Amino acid sequence: MGPLSTRHITGPVGPGPESVTVLSPVPRARIEGGFWARRRATNAEVSVPEGPRRLEEAGNLANLRAAADREGAGREGSDREGAVPPGFAGDFQFQDSDVHKWLEAACWQLADTPDDGLAAEVERIVGLVAAAQREDGYLQTYYQLGGGEPWTELGWGHELYCAGHLMQAAVAHHRVTGSRRLLDVARRLADHIGSVFGPGRRLDGVCGHPEVETALVELYRTTGERRHLELAGHFLDRRGHGTLSAGADRGHDRDPGPEYWQDHTPVREADEVTGHAVRQLYLLAGAADLAAETGDAGLRAALERLWADMVAGKTYLTGGVGSRHDWEAFGDGHELPADRAYTETCAAIASIHFSWRMALLTGEARYSDLVERTLFNGFLGGVGLDGLTWLYVNPLHRRSRAHERPGDQAAERTRWFRCACCPPNAMRLLASLPHYVASTDGGGGLQLHQYATGEYGGEGLVVRVESAYPWQGAVTVTVVAAPKAERTLSLRLPAWCADHALTVNGTSAETPARQGWLEVTRAFEPGDTVRLDLPLVPRLTRPHPRVDAVRGCVALERGPLVYCLEQTDQPDRADLDGLTLDPSGPVTERERPDLLGGVVTLTAAGHRHSADPAGPDGWWPYGPADAAPAPVGAAVELTAVPYYAWANRGAGGMRVWMPVTAAG
Amino acid sequence: MGPLSTRHITGPVGPGPESVTVLSPVPRARIEGGFWARRRATNAEVSVPEGPRRLEEAGNLANLRAAADREGAGREGSDREGAVPPGFAGDFQFQDSDVHKWLEAACWQLADTPDDGLAAEVERIVGLVAAAQREDGYLQTYYQLGGGEPWTELGWGHELYCAGHLMQAAVAHHRVTGSRRLLDVARRLADHIGSVFGPGRRLDGVCGHPEVETALVELYRTTGERRHLELAGHFLDRRGHGTLSAGADRGHDRDPGPEYWQDHTPVREADEVTGHAVRQLYLLAGAADLAAETGDAGLRAALERLWADMVAGKTYLTGGVGSRHDWEAFGDGHELPADRAYTETCAAIASIHFSWRMALLTGEARYSDLVERTLFNGFLGGVGLDGLTWLYVNPLHRRSRAHERPGDQAAERTRWFRCACCPPNAMRLLASLPHYVASTDGGGGLQLHQYATGEYGGEGLVVRVESAYPWQGAVTVTVVAAPKAERTLSLRLPAWCADHALTVNGTSAETPARQGWLEVTRAFEPGDTVRLDLPLVPRLTRPHPRVDAVRGCVALERGPLVYCLEQTDQPDRADLDGLTLDPSGPVTERERPDLLGGVVTLTAAGHRHSADPAGPDGWWPYGPADAAPAPVGAAVELTAVPYYAWANRGAGGMRVWMPVTAAG
Repeated sequence: MGPLSTRHITGPVGPGPESVTVLSPVPRARIEGGFWARRRATNAEVSVPEGPRRLEEAGNLANLRAAADREGAGREGSDREGAVPPGFAGDFQFQDSDVHKWLEAACWQLADTPDDGLAAEVERIVGLVAAAQREDGYLQTYYQLGGGEPWTELGWGHELYCAGHLMQAAVAHHRVTGSRRLLDVARRLADHIGSVFGPGRRLDGVCGHPEVETALVELYRTTGERRHLELAGHFLDRRGHGTLSAGADRGHDRDPGPEYWQDHTPVREADEVTGHAVRQLYLLAGAADLAAETGDAGLRAALERLWADMVAGKTYLTGGVGSRHDWEAFGDGHELPADRAYTETCAAIASIHFSWRMALLTGEARYSDLVERTLFNGFLGGVGLDGLTWLYVNPLHRRSRAHERPGDQAAERTRWFRCACCPPNAMRLLASLPHYVASTDGGGGLQLHQYATGEYGGEGLVVRVESAYPWQGAVTVTVVAAPKAERTLSLRLPAWCADHALTVNGTSAETPARQGWLEVTRAFEPGDTVRLDLPLVPRLTRPHPRVDAVRGCVALERGPLVYCLEQTDQPDRADLDGLTLDPSGPVTERERPDLLGGVVTLTAAGHRHSADPAGPDGWWPYGPADAAPAPVGAAVELTAVPYYAWANRGAGGMRVWMPVTAAG
Repeated sequence: MGPLSTRHITGPVGPGPESVTVLSPVPRARIEGGFWARRRATNAEVSVPEGPRRLEEAGNLANLRAAADREGAGREGSDREGAVPPGFAGDFQFQDSDVHKWLEAACWQLADTPDDGLAAEVERIVGLVAAAQREDGYLQTYYQLGGGEPWTELGWGHELYCAGHLMQAAVAHHRVTGSRRLLDVARRLADHIGSVFGPGRRLDGVCGHPEVETALVELYRTTGERRHLELAGHFLDRRGHGTLSAGADRGHDRDPGPEYWQDHTPVREADEVTGHAVRQLYLLAGAADLAAETGDAGLRAALERLWADMVAGKTYLTGGVGSRHDWEAFGDGHELPADRAYTETCAAIASIHFSWRMALLTGEARYSDLVERTLFNGFLGGVGLDGLTWLYVNPLHRRSRAHERPGDQAAERTRWFRCACCPPNAMRLLASLPHYVASTDGGGGLQLHQYATGEYGGEGLVVRVESAYPWQGAVTVTVVAAPKAERTLSLRLPAWCADHALTVNGTSAETPARQGWLEVTRAFEPGDTVRLDLPLVPRLTRPHPRVDAVRGCVALERGPLVYCLEQTDQPDRADLDGLTLDPSGPVTERERPDLLGGVVTLTAAGHRHSADPAGPDGWWPYGPADAAPAPVGAAVELTAVPYYAWANRGAGGMRVWMPVTAAG
């Protein structure tokens, strides 16, 4: 086992010593106050501690115990069947991964705040995982417990997917605790996988759900064992040759086609993001890791092209991605329905994973612009304010008279899901969030990608950030430690920001942004203060003419936050689909510390529709284009709340995009 | 077996002698020229004869032979496995129904045009069906051939669904040929079902896919055996109590919830159409049949309420229904995306079934307004001009750069589908179409619901209709036979028609429409001529403000036809999503006998977008609402073709709804 080069990083992404990334994460990364500290406290105090209870109820831990029984010497039988509670029609192949993601979350949490109880719980569950591993290194309880023959159902089997999540958990466990207990489980599993797949062995196999690629690279970064990197490269290269098949697997009478799992074309040749959004973005995160370690320019070019395709026409205002309920997939370019936006919470997380790796790889601020937008909106909307309830699907429009159909992933917060990928995924992102805030570069500079009160830095510059962001736009950066040499401190100027003010020790230090970065270069001394003011003016946003779904509408934004109207906040709880917004009216803001954990609300002018809901002909919602439009109805005051806070006050209508008064 | 009261009807819907319907179909109903005659000729000469070949290729007929082998005395084994061609991952439970629907289509076709070859083919396949029936009357090859235990998987099993289609085929076979051969198979099956389900037997069972209800009523109407009507009523009454379960059945890891199969609430209490669109509308067709036979006022009121809910916010301009790919379902009210419109061909057919029964039940013209719109657009778009290729899904927008993903039901015409419900369904509707044209009432009046050249009538009035509809608006109705008494001839004034002229024997006979009917009452004599002129002026149509998906757009219509723009017809094959339509410009029409089998095209003024497709910020499709809009681009001439004819010239973009120039 080689040197543990990123041992000092207690975050999920640690480029290795041979990496070609422009930026690297910083070892010191602590969020210590403000907006994210509160949400992370709920994660630490409520969500993460609740995890093992949910995993027990859902049968995940019972599966591990049963597998351990089966693998254990001299023991017979299994309690798996009995452990599946009523209401769970059957185990999913990927259920182990929920445990692994929870372990990863808990470990990052421990890096932040030592907690003996949590540490003991982690070790208990690590023990369950370790005990369930087969003698030869194989580990997936679904197949160990009679679900079928291992490695025969690569389309839906999720064996490499679960293995990847185990590796990520092991990396977290090792980076945080220094222990090799789970890391050795992961290495044995990785070596077992390497004994089945790869040159000289089975060449055709890739997993229906990418994930193992990014995990194997991180395992390589942690252990220095190059074979893991090579296996990741093998899986990336083998993908895109149409080897995956739905037909051969059970339980699926529809064929999603090879684009679903990105097996239609090799990544290097792809020119658009397609198929299942989480699969696509986990794959691209892994590809970005590989490009970082190998310097593969063709792969990097493909990643830049695919990211641009995603952003130009397949990303919602919230940063959410994946337009289609059908197959949880990306749609065509500019296919961005607000009502049926699937925008799975996990897809937002995957987008953040991909963009952050691109930010490190290229050093470009635009990637962190998208991370910010996705964090505050598309991702955070999936996390209930209580830390106990979740959204799987994150639409931008819920009709007042929508019927929640149980077959849908409901737009109502739920304590856990039958397919429970999102909650532990959100937990691990919140727990590791400090590691997305800052980076360093080869010249010892420090880049602030996000604005969150806390302390960030590496071996050179260390700074303390204070900010009431996103409610207030002032960011104060105080130098805590600095080398005795010139260094560059870079602050991301958010893409949403039309104006700003920058001072150094109280003196204006205006500088044009360079590719999204405001740079201050000097020989810093402890106590030096850089202050950035980002004006948080409410703004109205319109869509591109090609976005059919929200033509004639505007959305309210303020700073990095996308706003939405909830029915409950409007006069008489008015049906939102009967209201319009008048963009010529003023938009005012109001601090509401009492509301939704403390928010700034926005108020805009609007009107009621006077159109008969039954349609111009009284029975049919279509009529002559030259008929006089229904006159503008009564004026109303519209109230908007941050999108991330919606659906925390019971069911009701919600809209991000509001039709413009007199447009329709 | 009682009197065969509707023996003289050679169409699918024949209310019985005790029926409370206001209208009844007429025994004489022949389409003999014009638009529908041509489409029906293709059906008769190409589609129907091709059916058995497709059913052989897809394994449906092999299943019947194998079941016959198994049920036959002294024989062992089955060739079912071997008969499933490569590419068919497995049989669907409902595969027998494709055979039954083809038989029904062929029989209606024989009523129209005797054909010894087709008659022999029908008898051959009737023989296969009869031979496959189990001794006790059970018949569904999927379960007979080892697919599982009969009547244990009511959710997905489709046993009653297939039985219903068999009954409908048997009714057609009997009405057209007079033979009891298939009718006896259907009666034995119905009696077997009656021995399993119903009062005193199994009370809880309903089929996941409604269909048997309407079929049992028609079986009752044909045989006079009241027990079939009672069993239909039983199934209707038992539905809506949440007895269906996805979890208990195999092969489905997602639960669609009880609304999917309309098992969430009894029909009489429902206030909106929900769930799988074909299931919902087959159920309502059956409910309308029951209301017709029982006079159940509560049921009728529910049907009127549900039809109004469907039309007010869940029906596309084409008449298509079922907004969601996900579960092939109705969406919420006004959830009508153009691009992801699922609008299955079978759902359009089911809507016609339901509306026609409501027209008969109530005598109201609006139901036939919807039938007309659906026939010419949402339904007919599913039928390739060649009679050999089909659409399963009928969107109103296909992006120029859309990628057809194999997992989708593609918007490209296909020779047959793995789930091949639509083609034989379309065949049976086209073959029975004359029976949707005219009706009679208790006073001996004649109502013309649709305008198609041919002869229509009952025991009293018989008329000959001549019309070049839908290309020209003149309809000439000549009396062929009339009783020596006053009778009322009623002509439907289409809802799309703002103006009209009516003459009787050359003299103006203006009369206000009464609930959509233009009525001429007199003692008709043979040779009397009633002429209706419907001005076919191209018109621009706009959606209700609540239809979010097409806000700021207009559609082109002319007469009953909805038009669409296909990329191939625009200057330089321009990307349609970069064009707008200028409603202030003229819309002109042009006869194009050379194009698409002969159509009238429409030409409108439009412009190219000048907006950068990559978005106002060059990377992101959202920008400040107060930025100046991109200036209107170059003027272009837009060409539209009837929607029903789209996708017959290869892949390419298509739009029904065009953004208005300068709307954004």
